[in-house]
Amino acid sequence: MVGASARQGSPGNVVWRNLGGFPGEVIPVTPSSAEIDGIRAYPSLREVPGHVDLAVVAVPASAARDVVRDAVAAGVGACVIVSAGFAETGEAGAELQAEMVRIAREGGVLLVGPNCLGVQNCDIPLNASLSAGAARGGGGISVITQSGSYAMALNALSEDEGVNFAIAYSSGNRCDVDDAEVIDHVRTDPRTKVICAFLESLGNGELFVEVARRTTAVKPLIVNAVGRSEAGARAAASHTAALAANRRSWDDVLTSVGVVVTRSGLEMLDAARVLSTQPLPTGARAAIITNSGGTGTELSDLLADEGIVLPELSPALRAKLDELLPGYASSANPVDITPIWTRFAELYPAVLELLARSGEVDIVIPVLLHRSAENADVASALVAKVDELRRDDIQTSVYVCWVARRSAWPVAAGLHEAGIPCFEWPARTARAVGHAVRYADYRRAIEGSELPASPVPVALPVGVGIDADVTQEFVVSHGIPVVETAVCDWADDAVAQAEMIGYPVVAKVHHPNLLHKSDVGGVRVGLADANQLRSAATYLLALAPGAQVLIQQQVRGIELVVGGLSDETLGPIVAFGLGGVLVEVLDDVSFAPAHLDQRMAADLVSRPRGSSILNGVRGSAPVDRVAIEELVMSVGRLMATYPEIAELDLNPIMAGPDGVVAVDVRLIRRDETDRI
Amino acid sequence: MVGASARQGSPGNVVWRNLGGFPGEVIPVTPSSAEIDGIRAYPSLREVPGHVDLAVVAVPASAARDVVRDAVAAGVGACVIVSAGFAETGEAGAELQAEMVRIAREGGVLLVGPNCLGVQNCDIPLNASLSAGAARGGGGISVITQSGSYAMALNALSEDEGVNFAIAYSSGNRCDVDDAEVIDHVRTDPRTKVICAFLESLGNGELFVEVARRTTAVKPLIVNAVGRSEAGARAAASHTAALAANRRSWDDVLTSVGVVVTRSGLEMLDAARVLSTQPLPTGARAAIITNSGGTGTELSDLLADEGIVLPELSPALRAKLDELLPGYASSANPVDITPIWTRFAELYPAVLELLARSGEVDIVIPVLLHRSAENADVASALVAKVDELRRDDIQTSVYVCWVARRSAWPVAAGLHEAGIPCFEWPARTARAVGHAVRYADYRRAIEGSELPASPVPVALPVGVGIDADVTQEFVVSHGIPVVETAVCDWADDAVAQAEMIGYPVVAKVHHPNLLHKSDVGGVRVGLADANQLRSAATYLLALAPGAQVLIQQQVRGIELVVGGLSDETLGPIVAFGLGGVLVEVLDDVSFAPAHLDQRMAADLVSRPRGSSILNGVRGSAPVDRVAIEELVMSVGRLMATYPEIAELDLNPIMAGPDGVVAVDVRLIRRDETDRI
Repeated sequence: MVGASARQGSPGNVVWRNLGGFPGEVIPVTPSSAEIDGIRAYPSLREVPGHVDLAVVAVPASAARDVVRDAVAAGVGACVIVSAGFAETGEAGAELQAEMVRIAREGGVLLVGPNCLGVQNCDIPLNASLSAGAARGGGGISVITQSGSYAMALNALSEDEGVNFAIAYSSGNRCDVDDAEVIDHVRTDPRTKVICAFLESLGNGELFVEVARRTTAVKPLIVNAVGRSEAGARAAASHTAALAANRRSWDDVLTSVGVVVTRSGLEMLDAARVLSTQPLPTGARAAIITNSGGTGTELSDLLADEGIVLPELSPALRAKLDELLPGYASSANPVDITPIWTRFAELYPAVLELLARSGEVDIVIPVLLHRSAENADVASALVAKVDELRRDDIQTSVYVCWVARRSAWPVAAGLHEAGIPCFEWPARTARAVGHAVRYADYRRAIEGSELPASPVPVALPVGVGIDADVTQEFVVSHGIPVVETAVCDWADDAVAQAEMIGYPVVAKVHHPNLLHKSDVGGVRVGLADANQLRSAATYLLALAPGAQVLIQQQVRGIELVVGGLSDETLGPIVAFGLGGVLVEVLDDVSFAPAHLDQRMAADLVSRPRGSSILNGVRGSAPVDRVAIEELVMSVGRLMATYPEIAELDLNPIMAGPDGVVAVDVRLIRRDETDRI
Repeated sequence: MVGASARQGSPGNVVWRNLGGFPGEVIPVTPSSAEIDGIRAYPSLREVPGHVDLAVVAVPASAARDVVRDAVAAGVGACVIVSAGFAETGEAGAELQAEMVRIAREGGVLLVGPNCLGVQNCDIPLNASLSAGAARGGGGISVITQSGSYAMALNALSEDEGVNFAIAYSSGNRCDVDDAEVIDHVRTDPRTKVICAFLESLGNGELFVEVARRTTAVKPLIVNAVGRSEAGARAAASHTAALAANRRSWDDVLTSVGVVVTRSGLEMLDAARVLSTQPLPTGARAAIITNSGGTGTELSDLLADEGIVLPELSPALRAKLDELLPGYASSANPVDITPIWTRFAELYPAVLELLARSGEVDIVIPVLLHRSAENADVASALVAKVDELRRDDIQTSVYVCWVARRSAWPVAAGLHEAGIPCFEWPARTARAVGHAVRYADYRRAIEGSELPASPVPVALPVGVGIDADVTQEFVVSHGIPVVETAVCDWADDAVAQAEMIGYPVVAKVHHPNLLHKSDVGGVRVGLADANQLRSAATYLLALAPGAQVLIQQQVRGIELVVGGLSDETLGPIVAFGLGGVLVEVLDDVSFAPAHLDQRMAADLVSRPRGSSILNGVRGSAPVDRVAIEELVMSVGRLMATYPEIAELDLNPIMAGPDGVVAVDVRLIRRDETDRI
């Protein structure tokens, strides 16, 4: 502990006292004192006898560099630097940080932080942090957080809601080890059941997506990325030197590799509780047990918002329930046992048992309200019943929704200890259960499937993205259907080509300075004969010196857009949306990593709000979804194979029952982008 | 108190004990005992001496009817019937309830309930309810709830979060007095600052909307209507005999008359706290004060989701902040004072003061995190500072976001008592503040405006909705522009008409059985000459025996849909959406009451997600919004004037820079609907 201090309230004292619970040896290092709390102190790491596994550093920023130098000299494995005053404060701090990293890397010392709360290994316990209090161990939830306050929040949730953790890792400025590397490590940690990441930036986004993909195949990864808004990005930048970036695509790309994406840190931790305790839901069918209609109805609505269905129960099951319940009760789903408080401790577990054993639902949610929440017998009877069900190998997931005064909250402790998550109010409950259901869906969907190997990147052929003919030939040779297009320099040439293509045709201007053709009136559709075409072509050729005109067959269908983008953070990604003039207005576009298989492509294609248009509208036949999915995969392969492509825009794609075809292709080379 | 009982735990005893706090006289009525707790009991209401203002009834359902008869005989003003076993249990119960209502109405007695928790007038205090505990008075929040459990939840929030109430009214089966009547009464209650309604149905929806409109002009009305989902509707029906209905339009219609619409009961009560304590926000500009980046950034994002902006602060203000703050702090917005815990009690109020006095923001949100939340000096310094600001007439709204262990929650009590709402976690805070900002916006928007008088309903002329010509003339005479249309029986006639209209034309089939023309291939567009038209008309006329063909000029523009509907619950409403083939797929339609002014029409037109298309896409000129708003108002007037119209569909409307025109009109008479 470098910078250990006996002065109450100082950071060096807070960390020193937190380390007090560590069962191994903790040695204070400070030049200003010969001992701390009766333990011999050394003036520098170099003088500490024996091997040091970890140095926890709480010294002023200006002194940290020398501490790292000492750590290198002493052969220390890693340093956790809680000190602030580095890259988050400006240029001078950034330089200081960079030099510290250089020294550490040359000397083979790993750095955590700086400007972080520190790390906790709750099961040992090791609390190498500035935290006021400790996160309780034994729960299997590991948290990687750029935010110190969220590291502190774990203590509050341990104390207040019985949430138990495994590892709490505060990454702060994340100067050396990437969060993705930490996640990749925790992925193989047998005590970790669920991983949470509270982030202001993704670091190496491509690595993050890759690690996320292999993590979610074995355990849940929940990501809450803040800094989405302009002000949020400003705050993130001032705080941890994270850059604002195009955040919109993050949620989509992470979701498509199975990450549970949340909108708040509390929601992240709630999802972790649900996923670390009960069995993964076997489906999305839920039943509610309540003693008051209003709250049961509200929970039903909120579950429906999460895509969870409350099936009607079978007549046979309802008959069994009716036998059990008082006269005014309802055996419909939600099951309303009425406020018959004298029988709560008997009815809650009995109804739970009938529902869980019925096979008609995957999830049962008892709503404990006021008198039933305040009755300890109800909670313990539910715990006993769940134990009994598990002994009989009934894997129905059980979560409790709890509404009562907080003085009664200790009654819920028994539920937490038994691994039955218990949430205050319906909204928190529904959202958390929704995440569990979606993650379980993902796990079932990927079962047995293995992603093909990533293509080997190669150089982009010359001319692609510069010459229209070359570009078109290039994308066609990579499996992307493009409508037959003739490039013409003269109106007469256009007419000659149209005779071969067949009327009606479309004529478009082609010129490197006129990329958004529609904006300049550069697209003429429905040209029915040579006269109409000649007049249109003459007009288009005059739009810019050196302009050419493209002649295409007029294709009908539903307009879609498929694109590829080399994203600054995430690397190559693909996009799918509903096209035409509405694409920009409706902004109904979703994203996925370029490296994808058919399942992921199908998932992407189904994501836009308006995607039901693909099923056919007003009697028209459904479009060929497989052709769209294959097109998405072709674009993905192209983006992954040629890193020099900055952007590939197929807009519009015309889709019909017999396939898809791109009618406009726009490819931008990265070197062209750089030039802008 | 009819049914008063000395037996512990019985409903009659719970209510009796709750009434114990009432400062007036409470008389037990029961045939089975001569006294309760030493107070003389009477066997029936008829035998109670003197005038009884209110009878609280907790007797079996079968006996309630006779109690109401006694109440009539004794001249009692009103009965609160907490007993269950009425309409919520089926047909027999519904009959019992109906007879009870008949007796009460004939005898001039008002009924509350049955199947309700009862009523509380927290300021007196009068607790005439089955509730375990009481809601605390003095806070000005009045709650009307169909759900008994939400009436109980008020007690929990009083106790746990310092929320204070005025009236808690549990309406249960709502057999006599409509919730809208209760709201209309509470609207004029001087102690009520904010009204909440937790509902499973709207009762008389048209009355509800009317009452809501006049209520929100003077104080906030917050509505949480459950039963949106299929299962929720099922639960609501089994519970309070509410009917499932078209719930989609409720949110829109209520929002358009200024109601704060929430998705959960807790959100409703959070919004009430914000609206009943701090001044209404003067705008949507907020500043955050935090001591940790992550939580500040998360709150920034969540506020942005609510449409609240965090403006960059002026250089002058930042200079003042920088002078105050430690070196590593950030004076950007969020202002991050860093975890310098020794200076929290000084810096939080000092930064609040600079921000509040700057005039650069309308709202300041201090984030109290862990050490700052647990420090009572910080809370009391903030309270003192807000007091000081108010004395100087600085009306900046102040809300606190609080994240810490709950054992520290008592520290927040001082904030509550001072009327500074304090919410756990950023998500709850942002949502509640968002509601306050939107309501304040509404109040500013309606200032000085007065809605024109509702039109007097008249009978629909004969032929309208039956004969195409008559219908068209009817809507045109009511200010709805319709594209010139010729109704033709023969192909030759069509060609003759087209010569006058001018090519290109559109031809459509017209037949009472072919309402969805596109679905049967009944629309032909872009007919360029007599040959094309003749062939199309021949085809269309053959689609059904007796079919006619409509010939119209081909109009270009952005396709919209405007409609009117006589809604089962809400009465006449209007709809606006983006039209064309995508309207059903995108489902981007919003609703408003038919009785509206231009401000409401403009609001409706701006609501669809894709409404930015009206501003012009890719260089095209913006469409004539005023013409759309006038069209919406014309449709509204039509719907309000002719209650016999079941549905009026103008789809598509073609909108351009020079106005709008309907190209297809579909009007369905109510008697036609009934026939289906």
